[in-house]
Amino acid sequence: MKALVLKGTEELAIEEMDIYRNLGDDDVRVAVKQVGICGSDIHYYLHGGIGDYIVREPMVLGHEASGIVTETGRNVTRLKAGDRVCMEPGVPTPNSRETRKGIYNLDPDLTFWATPPVHGCLCESVVHPEQFTYRLPENVSLEEGAMVEPLAIGMQAASRAGIKPGDIALVTGCGTIGIVTALAALAGGCSKVIISDILADKLKITESYQSIIPVNLQQEDLGTVVQKVTGGWGADIVFETTGSGAVISTVHQYAAPRGCIVLIGIPASGKAEISITGLQAKEIRLETIFRYVHMYERTIELISSGSIDVKPLISKIYPFEKSIEAYEAAANPERGLLKVQISL
Amino acid sequence: MKALVLKGTEELAIEEMDIYRNLGDDDVRVAVKQVGICGSDIHYYLHGGIGDYIVREPMVLGHEASGIVTETGRNVTRLKAGDRVCMEPGVPTPNSRETRKGIYNLDPDLTFWATPPVHGCLCESVVHPEQFTYRLPENVSLEEGAMVEPLAIGMQAASRAGIKPGDIALVTGCGTIGIVTALAALAGGCSKVIISDILADKLKITESYQSIIPVNLQQEDLGTVVQKVTGGWGADIVFETTGSGAVISTVHQYAAPRGCIVLIGIPASGKAEISITGLQAKEIRLETIFRYVHMYERTIELISSGSIDVKPLISKIYPFEKSIEAYEAAANPERGLLKVQISL
Amino acid sequence: MKALVLKGTEELAIEEMDIYRNLGDDDVRVAVKQVGICGSDIHYYLHGGIGDYIVREPMVLGHEASGIVTETGRNVTRLKAGDRVCMEPGVPTPNSRETRKGIYNLDPDLTFWATPPVHGCLCESVVHPEQFTYRLPENVSLEEGAMVEPLAIGMQAASRAGIKPGDIALVTGCGTIGIVTALAALAGGCSKVIISDILADKLKITESYQSIIPVNLQQEDLGTVVQKVTGGWGADIVFETTGSGAVISTVHQYAAPRGCIVLIGIPASGKAEISITGLQAKEIRLETIFRYVHMYERTIELISSGSIDVKPLISKIYPFEKSIEAYEAAANPERGLLKVQISL
Amino acid sequence: MKALVLKGTEELAIEEMDIYRNLGDDDVRVAVKQVGICGSDIHYYLHGGIGDYIVREPMVLGHEASGIVTETGRNVTRLKAGDRVCMEPGVPTPNSRETRKGIYNLDPDLTFWATPPVHGCLCESVVHPEQFTYRLPENVSLEEGAMVEPLAIGMQAASRAGIKPGDIALVTGCGTIGIVTALAALAGGCSKVIISDILADKLKITESYQSIIPVNLQQEDLGTVVQKVTGGWGADIVFETTGSGAVISTVHQYAAPRGCIVLIGIPASGKAEISITGLQAKEIRLETIFRYVHMYERTIELISSGSIDVKPLISKIYPFEKSIEAYEAAANPERGLLKVQISL
Repeated sequence: MKALVLKGTEELAIEEMDIYRNLGDDDVRVAVKQVGICGSDIHYYLHGGIGDYIVREPMVLGHEASGIVTETGRNVTRLKAGDRVCMEPGVPTPNSRETRKGIYNLDPDLTFWATPPVHGCLCESVVHPEQFTYRLPENVSLEEGAMVEPLAIGMQAASRAGIKPGDIALVTGCGTIGIVTALAALAGGCSKVIISDILADKLKITESYQSIIPVNLQQEDLGTVVQKVTGGWGADIVFETTGSGAVISTVHQYAAPRGCIVLIGIPASGKAEISITGLQAKEIRLETIFRYVHMYERTIELISSGSIDVKPLISKIYPFEKSIEAYEAAANPERGLLKVQISL
Repeated sequence: MKALVLKGTEELAIEEMDIYRNLGDDDVRVAVKQVGICGSDIHYYLHGGIGDYIVREPMVLGHEASGIVTETGRNVTRLKAGDRVCMEPGVPTPNSRETRKGIYNLDPDLTFWATPPVHGCLCESVVHPEQFTYRLPENVSLEEGAMVEPLAIGMQAASRAGIKPGDIALVTGCGTIGIVTALAALAGGCSKVIISDILADKLKITESYQSIIPVNLQQEDLGTVVQKVTGGWGADIVFETTGSGAVISTVHQYAAPRGCIVLIGIPASGKAEISITGLQAKEIRLETIFRYVHMYERTIELISSGSIDVKPLISKIYPFEKSIEAYEAAANPERGLLKVQISL
Repeated sequence: MKALVLKGTEELAIEEMDIYRNLGDDDVRVAVKQVGICGSDIHYYLHGGIGDYIVREPMVLGHEASGIVTETGRNVTRLKAGDRVCMEPGVPTPNSRETRKGIYNLDPDLTFWATPPVHGCLCESVVHPEQFTYRLPENVSLEEGAMVEPLAIGMQAASRAGIKPGDIALVTGCGTIGIVTALAALAGGCSKVIISDILADKLKITESYQSIIPVNLQQEDLGTVVQKVTGGWGADIVFETTGSGAVISTVHQYAAPRGCIVLIGIPASGKAEISITGLQAKEIRLETIFRYVHMYERTIELISSGSIDVKPLISKIYPFEKSIEAYEAAANPERGLLKVQISL
Repeated sequence: MKALVLKGTEELAIEEMDIYRNLGDDDVRVAVKQVGICGSDIHYYLHGGIGDYIVREPMVLGHEASGIVTETGRNVTRLKAGDRVCMEPGVPTPNSRETRKGIYNLDPDLTFWATPPVHGCLCESVVHPEQFTYRLPENVSLEEGAMVEPLAIGMQAASRAGIKPGDIALVTGCGTIGIVTALAALAGGCSKVIISDILADKLKITESYQSIIPVNLQQEDLGTVVQKVTGGWGADIVFETTGSGAVISTVHQYAAPRGCIVLIGIPASGKAEISITGLQAKEIRLETIFRYVHMYERTIELISSGSIDVKPLISKIYPFEKSIEAYEAAANPERGLLKVQISL
């Protein structure tokens, strides 16, 4: 079958690949229909690796996908051919201590699409365990289905934060992850979300959403806005999505006493300097997330119920043949695109 | 000043009362503008008491109120004359162990409007501590302000439930408390709320709300609906608002493994038979609430942000002169009214 | 091999049984060395069933066991022949939603030793999954190893209670489960545990333990003791182990504001009348447990560290040949025995 | 009265001071009997300040105190002359938002003994609010009473950690705070606590305690020990008490998946570099503490019940006349003293 293959740094090609051949008893085969481009895909494309994960062999990209079931293994009972589905890209081993305790995202042997040396899903069809393949409700489109993966990250952050109904949150960074986190926070119980960025263009997306308060850091002082919106108390929860050391080292200033900071963004160096006394003075709790766990079903529910609208985040859709063009567009910050998808 | 006084069972009158005379240093005087009628008001009106609380002296009714500040004590800094406000009707003592631990609703010495022998707020003006008087944002009307009190009960239930983003809830009973609980649950993170009642009329209100699934118990089997909506898992949270022993004894059937049941409704006898093994087989957690604590500010925020729309719940508004008529209407179940308010 | 078989109500025999023949790849074979007699074993012995679980075919009894590994399946890596171990009697299916979420105790397809129609472990050897077989540290005896199972129930209760360091608990009922719960509560963070019973004989065991305060209900008023010990605040946690409807309906009286009641005892009727208003007035949380989940390792740790001493609970040990005599002794309340074990 | 006064850097004197003159209605007067020397006292003594807190006027030192009530204000009901008590050194304002929410330790207007410009308690008698003065049980000595303050810090850490019964903890740093944290962690539910230090002398104290595993960092690799003790899983909780940037930046390595790190130690610079990706890869939660809140009563209970033995921590007691000698000894690390107390 045809697949979009990363062959080296900035070297992409649509090629024939002999992958996803065998259908196991617990698997389904899915004709891939829609695939979003993630920041990690772009990082592999531009740099050939992320940290310890180096692309050493040609690798099929893509892990944010939806599609239609075409074939089912003999033990499959929940899904059938023709079902519209989305797929969770990480598959854990069933017997690790982490998996058994319900935190399979931390299973050290979990395989994840398009994380070397594992192939991704930007190809005509994939074979995937039924257990990690989820039927889409009628009112959720395949485009929205391919948004479940990034939104699940926001959901993991919102879940770990322990939002109490009516909390006020701050999200630092208005990229795709910043926005999906803001949406998950609102759907997850927050009354308002302040979102900050240094680029006015990125904040435009907030016009689509009630209850999101944009802060252009070149024009406004974030501390002043937080004080005003929270009546001087501070944000109950701060979601940090920039990964910038400079931001991470200051976010405690915006948090309320006994507030929570969720670190979502990943610093390039892996590290950041933190004000320990700044955290201690307010007994701030700091949470961290790694992808998501048991989040797909509830993420789909919140899209289906209308609590979260991801459609404004899909900036542009390219046909599969123009995948390389799609990657170039997504990789170009000047284009100011949020989510770019590829349609098969 | 004029006040609506309960003088005996089913004996109401608008009379001159000499109350709320002294303004303390930490108090504000508020011209009362809007007062909702609560089930407890009606209970006092029809029966002259609730449990141990017996109306022995003429008592001014009403505890769901909004108004406009007219005068402020010398220590008051947060409010000023002209401010549109709503008032929390329960005022705790500052030094009880409960108050100091942040659970002032459980302070045994808390006084509460229109709970004998304490007068309520259905009168021209009241004196109230600044600390329990909250400014309304511009986009929240006085009618909505008088809805904060009942909504705060739903908020307390939603908070104690520990909703995780995307949970699916069941609310039993579609009266005012059932509906405000459903709204708080949705704003607090639920993707969908199933609400059940035996009266089709009461379920009509759900047409105003997305994500609320009405179940007419005379036509549908609740278990079947819950199974279908939750994919066979059961409701993550069940909010019980009927207070009916028959309902309380069966709600565990609809809960998911490790689910939560919040008991909000108060049985007439105070008691109910519960299936202990039914709870144990799913390790269900059962939470109970008593009014609300630290809920007013976040309740107002969720109305102001648009997350909760209470306007459809206000069925009818009477002028103060027609207060007795208002009580008669509210007390008549055949009128099928949700919230009746009195305007001063 | 020889096994203790329940053939009908009050009909026990040591007989040859052809069981535990095949060793799977993930299994270990264990020579059974010590088996405790549980209340459920006695119930099956005396009544031939518990609720829906009816003994219809001869069934080997016993589920509280320790032993020595004699053979290992080909995938087994953690255990080896000669290892002293104890075994968790319930084995879930790996792919149920409950198991995947880390709550395998609620898996509806879990099999459990000596729960009809599944055979127990009172026989010469058993085959068991490595995953549910735990090595005993050197300083934990086989007798103590056979106590891990009942202690794990107390641990589940202590875990679900959410003990905060220094909490004061009340345990109602001073049988084996009452005592193991008290010990788990103390090891789990409580400063003191009050334990109540109507039989002075059962309270004698408390003399072995510091920090357990016995209350003989025939001589002392429980409410008075709780008030005195807790400085008038009430017990932070109440562990109910009697299963008596009369007790269950009154325990809320002893709980503190925002306290927790854990229902461990199982009423004969399955039901109990509860004071809903009694719970609501203090916003009491009620937790329920079903056996235990992920508790064996931490239970063994607490025995090994000396935090919990279960040795005083072992009242009497019979050799395997005298198993019937052991059951008769255990079934006779006048003997006043706590834990009776059988040694192979 | 006589008091130990800090007059400048390294300038101590016992002098007459006219302090604690007026007894308010809600206060008690306490004859001070025992006062411990804290690291912060020594810091003020050696450096004349801590961060923004500069000693500008002569200041009485001391905040870890016990004594005997000699006089009571007119509203005092709980205490009487002759009562043996210990005193909580921080007194919040009653109406701050923090105090009302039950987190009075975060009240910005809280006053704290021996924190400039507030005098401490190393003097003949103090006046203190009844509310923050606690009666000692008969079996708790005045020496132990003066240990409640530092132990309360360990208790706050143990409480915020959310220990589950049987958790295994690591404490980095074996000074007074390290040890009280280890003791609070064990009393609060841990089965074992590993404690590490670079000085063999400081680890000697662990010989007094069962379940504390000392690790001499000059001889053993901490990671290896943690792996062995936890069966390769990592420590469920890491309590960091050194305040060393080098330690803070590495402790995530020792934590289990979904483990918790509690930051107790205060870096000299206020800051530390943290491995964000190290935290994220295991979804580690990081908690911070600021002194303690609502901890005195439960700390006293755990000493009284025998769950925590603080007596081995009291290295040396000096009479009040030799207070300067006591400070010199406490300030000299070569003396290797844990807690030094002064007796009046």
